[in-house]
Amino acid sequence: MSVNRFGKILSVSTFGESHGPAIGCVIDGVPPGIAIAPEQFRHDLDRRATGKSRHTSQRHETDEIEILSGVYQGKTTGTALALLIRNTDARSKDYADIDAQFRPGHADYTYWQKYGIRDPNGGGRSSARETTMRVAAGVIAKAWLAQQFNITVRGYLSQLGPLKPRQHDWQVVETNPFFWPDPDMVTELEAYMDALRKSGDSIGAAVTVVAEGVPPGWGEPIYGKLDAEIALAMMSINAVKGVEIGDGFAAIEQKGSEHRDEMRPDGFLSNHAGGILGGISTGQTIRTRIAIKPTSSLRLPGQTVNTQGEPVEVITKGRHDPCVGIRATPIAEAMLALVLMDQAMRHRAQCGDVGVVAPRIPAGTDQE
Amino acid sequence: MSVNRFGKILSVSTFGESHGPAIGCVIDGVPPGIAIAPEQFRHDLDRRATGKSRHTSQRHETDEIEILSGVYQGKTTGTALALLIRNTDARSKDYADIDAQFRPGHADYTYWQKYGIRDPNGGGRSSARETTMRVAAGVIAKAWLAQQFNITVRGYLSQLGPLKPRQHDWQVVETNPFFWPDPDMVTELEAYMDALRKSGDSIGAAVTVVAEGVPPGWGEPIYGKLDAEIALAMMSINAVKGVEIGDGFAAIEQKGSEHRDEMRPDGFLSNHAGGILGGISTGQTIRTRIAIKPTSSLRLPGQTVNTQGEPVEVITKGRHDPCVGIRATPIAEAMLALVLMDQAMRHRAQCGDVGVVAPRIPAGTDQE
Amino acid sequence: MSVNRFGKILSVSTFGESHGPAIGCVIDGVPPGIAIAPEQFRHDLDRRATGKSRHTSQRHETDEIEILSGVYQGKTTGTALALLIRNTDARSKDYADIDAQFRPGHADYTYWQKYGIRDPNGGGRSSARETTMRVAAGVIAKAWLAQQFNITVRGYLSQLGPLKPRQHDWQVVETNPFFWPDPDMVTELEAYMDALRKSGDSIGAAVTVVAEGVPPGWGEPIYGKLDAEIALAMMSINAVKGVEIGDGFAAIEQKGSEHRDEMRPDGFLSNHAGGILGGISTGQTIRTRIAIKPTSSLRLPGQTVNTQGEPVEVITKGRHDPCVGIRATPIAEAMLALVLMDQAMRHRAQCGDVGVVAPRIPAGTDQE
Amino acid sequence: MSVNRFGKILSVSTFGESHGPAIGCVIDGVPPGIAIAPEQFRHDLDRRATGKSRHTSQRHETDEIEILSGVYQGKTTGTALALLIRNTDARSKDYADIDAQFRPGHADYTYWQKYGIRDPNGGGRSSARETTMRVAAGVIAKAWLAQQFNITVRGYLSQLGPLKPRQHDWQVVETNPFFWPDPDMVTELEAYMDALRKSGDSIGAAVTVVAEGVPPGWGEPIYGKLDAEIALAMMSINAVKGVEIGDGFAAIEQKGSEHRDEMRPDGFLSNHAGGILGGISTGQTIRTRIAIKPTSSLRLPGQTVNTQGEPVEVITKGRHDPCVGIRATPIAEAMLALVLMDQAMRHRAQCGDVGVVAPRIPAGTDQE
Repeated sequence: MSVNRFGKILSVSTFGESHGPAIGCVIDGVPPGIAIAPEQFRHDLDRRATGKSRHTSQRHETDEIEILSGVYQGKTTGTALALLIRNTDARSKDYADIDAQFRPGHADYTYWQKYGIRDPNGGGRSSARETTMRVAAGVIAKAWLAQQFNITVRGYLSQLGPLKPRQHDWQVVETNPFFWPDPDMVTELEAYMDALRKSGDSIGAAVTVVAEGVPPGWGEPIYGKLDAEIALAMMSINAVKGVEIGDGFAAIEQKGSEHRDEMRPDGFLSNHAGGILGGISTGQTIRTRIAIKPTSSLRLPGQTVNTQGEPVEVITKGRHDPCVGIRATPIAEAMLALVLMDQAMRHRAQCGDVGVVAPRIPAGTDQE
Repeated sequence: MSVNRFGKILSVSTFGESHGPAIGCVIDGVPPGIAIAPEQFRHDLDRRATGKSRHTSQRHETDEIEILSGVYQGKTTGTALALLIRNTDARSKDYADIDAQFRPGHADYTYWQKYGIRDPNGGGRSSARETTMRVAAGVIAKAWLAQQFNITVRGYLSQLGPLKPRQHDWQVVETNPFFWPDPDMVTELEAYMDALRKSGDSIGAAVTVVAEGVPPGWGEPIYGKLDAEIALAMMSINAVKGVEIGDGFAAIEQKGSEHRDEMRPDGFLSNHAGGILGGISTGQTIRTRIAIKPTSSLRLPGQTVNTQGEPVEVITKGRHDPCVGIRATPIAEAMLALVLMDQAMRHRAQCGDVGVVAPRIPAGTDQE
Repeated sequence: MSVNRFGKILSVSTFGESHGPAIGCVIDGVPPGIAIAPEQFRHDLDRRATGKSRHTSQRHETDEIEILSGVYQGKTTGTALALLIRNTDARSKDYADIDAQFRPGHADYTYWQKYGIRDPNGGGRSSARETTMRVAAGVIAKAWLAQQFNITVRGYLSQLGPLKPRQHDWQVVETNPFFWPDPDMVTELEAYMDALRKSGDSIGAAVTVVAEGVPPGWGEPIYGKLDAEIALAMMSINAVKGVEIGDGFAAIEQKGSEHRDEMRPDGFLSNHAGGILGGISTGQTIRTRIAIKPTSSLRLPGQTVNTQGEPVEVITKGRHDPCVGIRATPIAEAMLALVLMDQAMRHRAQCGDVGVVAPRIPAGTDQE
Repeated sequence: MSVNRFGKILSVSTFGESHGPAIGCVIDGVPPGIAIAPEQFRHDLDRRATGKSRHTSQRHETDEIEILSGVYQGKTTGTALALLIRNTDARSKDYADIDAQFRPGHADYTYWQKYGIRDPNGGGRSSARETTMRVAAGVIAKAWLAQQFNITVRGYLSQLGPLKPRQHDWQVVETNPFFWPDPDMVTELEAYMDALRKSGDSIGAAVTVVAEGVPPGWGEPIYGKLDAEIALAMMSINAVKGVEIGDGFAAIEQKGSEHRDEMRPDGFLSNHAGGILGGISTGQTIRTRIAIKPTSSLRLPGQTVNTQGEPVEVITKGRHDPCVGIRATPIAEAMLALVLMDQAMRHRAQCGDVGVVAPRIPAGTDQE
């Protein structure tokens, strides 16, 4: 089963508990000859890491990555590529109080129901700590997509609770701690988050991720659809409750004459589809947006039951993000990159490298 | 690859083009001993079928199903269960004009880009005709879930373009051609659809599906999450552009103290999560909602290119649904049932039948 | 699960019982653009068919194949390719006596133990009738391998009970009813089989299959090894009890200095390895040999139990092969072709079409 | 793809090069609640380890195993179980001479052809070092099979070059460095191996593995057959060239009346089938035998080519086993245990825990 594995031809198996000795992954099916060095993981791991600003969890993840196999003299060999990060700064004592309680809105209760046993420290396997390895694997996928196809995968926070960007500037996304595309609103976000943190509560968010430069023809119809696998990938990220492609839920109120993206030899006239039709890429920008729920680990007391079935009040200590959505941007980018690389390899398997047919029209009009 | 296959332990492989000789499926992994007869497929196939009212495509699908294997003396044997439906009432001449054109918003262009060849008649493999077999396979899943676990899977149209139900009555869902839960609005819907059909345009819709009675503990964490696989399943349905679980996109603006579902020994106090936490069922009602785009096959002319790359104007003849969302309800139900049955079997594989642990609290408060 | 499915990228799902309405298969992942017509299946289906000589079962399989999907205007479209054969000449009454008995050496008992239910007619799903669809799918694989890579897959009966060929002539293999490579022994084989049939007993056999022209580099190391997947494929054929690659069991008594195939720029000096090292093809001829047990369905009485657990004596009527090994040759060829095509596509997925590296030495010396 | 992964429900992904920083594995799908401690791996790792006697490679593998995840307070949690062993005593300088040469009979050439790059140190990924992790994973499978079903999996060296045991005593198998069941021959084996080592040559061998106590009904028909998956598992072990089940190749010359295992209420009268019929276990002892080729890494010079395609003479230094078959016994046991555990879980998925049907007859007569 794919409990801990993602992808079909390029597959990633992750392991590790939040407060266990280490987390890591095995990446299977990596094409040979990709140049990769430990320091290349740094950028995206830092973007995902906690403790970078006061707006995320104060656990300090240094996340020194070790390449255990699959790379020889700086290049991938085609064999299993394993990555390892030792856990540090784990404060399991924060969890002593709740090891016999189920936090409402958390996976505590469901893991217990499924397995009859759970590691309560830091959420154990259900912790977002696991997503570190998604980001690490995504680094390889992003590198391959960029080198082989000149594809860019990038994302931004597209909503923070009630706040929505009023303008879009890719340049500023990486210059503020929120991945926010509107430079005029950063102060407003900081104030909002400071107040929220003080209140002990948390808030939801939305992240948008795009892939530019994807050629037409990637994705498999029926049950291996590119959009369906994006949905699987995104919904597998902790706290995600919704996924949409292109116009998504807005399409409910659209007419067909408005939604269908007309085509001309010089390009598509719009991109309501989000770059995917019939589960296959059109050659336009692929766009997906995800809804992320507010963290359930709060300092505010809540009603719950303990492992004896008795009613108790729970207060979560530990170091938690008041908005997990903020750090979800690099994770969502990584998942989109992994889906695309896997689909590219699947396309190559069935249709070969020479699958290009005429006419191929340009991406044409798009919007942010 | 799972191009044409869905599910891991219980898997369904479908085949067939819209206007080819037949469509069918092979269901692998069916538990032995399930009582099943050809006539049991009738109810759901009729619900999905076209030609039942003036509001859906006028192609008349009689859909006589033949069981080719896997059933002996009225019971499943555990071996491959194959189903076949011969295609009738196919009017391929409707497609003669567009066999060298790409309908905007349709998979015509992407299949061509991927494979360099496509069957244009009725959309070939990309046609929603394929979903007939999803519904047929879903009949077996629904039967098994009901018999073994007393689980009910059912759905309704939760939005039609701008129209939303103002009340919810499960009783009336099956009594109108729209699967609409508000009896007072049916006339309004009919008027809306009549006007739309006259205009030659189409409209989007939303469908909500629920599963009641699912025990806690189903679903696999990390990459085999129950919600992630529901997202995969739903997004694999033709024309679906968005999926949400529980409160979905509304969670973006929720506080953690509002969203987390508190628990008491007598049950959960709410169900914002939609019955899933950490990818595993909580024992509450599982709820998912999907966004369905408006049909791209319109009588209204649109700009496109032909297979020579030249600009042309396209008008789609053939018999198309002005709102494909209407008939999506039984399809979405079938997909949810298939996901649940597969996850139930996966849970049994790893944790055995005796996975029940204390305390298990009741489903508690829910809402429609 | 892959109960009824074989292959990873190119996968074949078969269905159907021996005496049910039909048998068939769905082939997933077929590359687009392969020219294929129903009559192309004729040759190999005839080679496998019963009733062709007095030395095989007298059931007359006409095996008219129908292509249900995946082919448009004579070419594969890349979508699910489904094949169907209606069962004819089924004489289920032959099995009335044994529907409550377990034939010794047959799958009757184990299917019953696994599923608690079985279709006794003609062996139901456990019948070698299923292999018809392996042969049909193999036709597509053979065609693709020949067209794309000039690969030939062929086989012969390499032992019949105590009889072994004393010379090898590929030309005569197809000219006698035994797939026997030694023209001087055909009369001897006929006499042996006539005597055996009269005795009511059956006999084992061996089949050897080779693939010539396979480029180096196919096969995946560790758990996806080319030889391991050949072993899986061959052992999945009814009645096969052993598989060897190259020298196989003879390697037990060989020295390393004898077994290792030395290499020179003008080619390998020998082929003890059977064309595979480390699970990857060397560019030499791939050779595998399989052991096939004697049929367990005999006219000679045998001790067994019935479904009540009582001791009974069983005599099998029905029309059975006194040596199932004879007709196994085209089945084994088909399985080898399917493994190779799947591995070729997997290689292309990971390493691309441009995986050729210098130096590549010729196949060199080989032997039959 | 399953390049580096084995198993379907219980799956093992291994990683690591012979002389890289570490080897390890991720075991997915482990049932919760199995008691496991690092020291439990010691016994089987020691049995497989090199450097235990003068008859195996002199590399000293201390193989200290670290459990990185999936175990909490001494019990498996159902989440990904990761194991790690740091490599020590790696002498890569032994390989400096051959990093541009292809050893005949070795995977050097085929890895190079497939990937265009290879790690030559100690054979890199193609080294039998990888099998350490098979043995480690097998420890968990053996423990589960023993605890849940009272199943024993064990093996012995059944042939060493020309030498065959003349008697069988399970008691002595673990008391000599050869896993040899005949106590009277150990001195003879030592003399044989000493002479062989002095000559610089190597020799082939056979290993037999059995599983006692397997209930009837395990294994999936058609393409998931128990024997087919055993064949896959065994042939995936380095240097294995042949696999047989039960009588195997001896069945070629058997009559059906001899081969079929007759049944009586008090048990089977023989076990020619090796405990498997139609791909499903019969309840008898499961028996498989494998042929292992002689090591290709010899001190004796051999003809080959280098990476420039030029003819060269190769002499392998490094520390190699003169008979790799000797240490293959625990590896083959591990693979059989992993196949059985995976099949047990698959059976449970489809048929539930309550798959027991009457009549079930005892294992009855068997032989070694």
